[in-house]
Amino acid sequence: MKDIKGFAFDAYGTLFDVFSVAALCEQLFPGKGPTLAQLWRVKQLQYSMLRSLMGRYRDFWQLTEDGLVYACQSLGLELTAEARKRLLNAYLSLTPFPDVKPGLEALKERGLRLAILSNGEPKMLEAAVRNAAIASFLDGIISVEEVKIFKPSPQVYGLASHRLGVPPAELGFVSSNSWDVAGAASAGLRAVWIQRSVAEPPERLGFAAERVVGAITDLSPLLT
Amino acid sequence: MKDIKGFAFDAYGTLFDVFSVAALCEQLFPGKGPTLAQLWRVKQLQYSMLRSLMGRYRDFWQLTEDGLVYACQSLGLELTAEARKRLLNAYLSLTPFPDVKPGLEALKERGLRLAILSNGEPKMLEAAVRNAAIASFLDGIISVEEVKIFKPSPQVYGLASHRLGVPPAELGFVSSNSWDVAGAASAGLRAVWIQRSVAEPPERLGFAAERVVGAITDLSPLLT
Repeated sequence: MKDIKGFAFDAYGTLFDVFSVAALCEQLFPGKGPTLAQLWRVKQLQYSMLRSLMGRYRDFWQLTEDGLVYACQSLGLELTAEARKRLLNAYLSLTPFPDVKPGLEALKERGLRLAILSNGEPKMLEAAVRNAAIASFLDGIISVEEVKIFKPSPQVYGLASHRLGVPPAELGFVSSNSWDVAGAASAGLRAVWIQRSVAEPPERLGFAAERVVGAITDLSPLLT
Repeated sequence: MKDIKGFAFDAYGTLFDVFSVAALCEQLFPGKGPTLAQLWRVKQLQYSMLRSLMGRYRDFWQLTEDGLVYACQSLGLELTAEARKRLLNAYLSLTPFPDVKPGLEALKERGLRLAILSNGEPKMLEAAVRNAAIASFLDGIISVEEVKIFKPSPQVYGLASHRLGVPPAELGFVSSNSWDVAGAASAGLRAVWIQRSVAEPPERLGFAAERVVGAITDLSPLLT
């Protein structure tokens, strides 16, 4: 991957650990935390794809709330206004994975163009970046809000190339989601799959990752 | 719903009971049947949406196989060529729900235009219709294959209106999937949600069913 001139990174689950959200789910709904957190995440993503296909875009903050309300209804959990607010706000103060800062720093020292490319709504992303103190490494925080369709539409990946001024064939894209990796590869980006812990099979979508890494700090060595 | 001139029906889970597939999963992988059947179904649908958004259509028979292979890999189950063939072929001989034949017959007697509108590949649908012996009630077996994008794209629901010669505002659409109901309503069809057993909350996609019924036989009385 020596010809790479920049990297775009998925946000949730790739740079930011959503575990704190799951922990709050468990605190508010003892014994139901993991089930709620998982269904919430499934719905959040499902709604992004369904609304994209329906041509009925709604921003990710609203989808996150819709997914939470559905998940609680489905599991028979009473969601108070207070709990809803706390759970949604947890998305604004996510912890970055420990390899994120040193990994981004090493890439920045090489002079690469770096950005976040996320389904997230701009204010959600800005808050998470500020909280994680990684703004100084980034040349852009790019949200699908600009094209009003969610990943894995090729429009989203094309936006990163356009905004960073790096051709798709020289732009790396890093995600912990195998389907996001396939979407980026399908759109002509150089896709890297980050698998920090659990080994999962790749999604069967016809497009594979060029590399699989275990941490953001594994990226810089790939360029030499 | 007195002004309805025709109905389009979703196939899998709406007219055809996919339980036989789950039963075969359990027979081939004892103790893992329900988990495998559920993950397989999730992947089959997820791949249809992901590929639609990626602009990389592949027919539903192939997606069904992709979903099965992924599900087995993910659960650590060894899928022999023989087991793969048997499981896929189970989709060709699904049983219709008991209310389907009398329900379609009652609607047909009213002179309504009736069709299947499904993600399914044409040969899959034809085999299921033949096996269920419901061909005589149907004016069409409409597959997304004609537009090469999956539900809930408005193109799919528009296809049913076009093929049946019934304007969207006079065309009922019946599905057991709440997201499919929302997609049809968003496209201007008259959406009916069929819930045969488990009460689930409706998906939060901004478009609700006009009616909720418990069986296909509940439709005809709605028209008087």
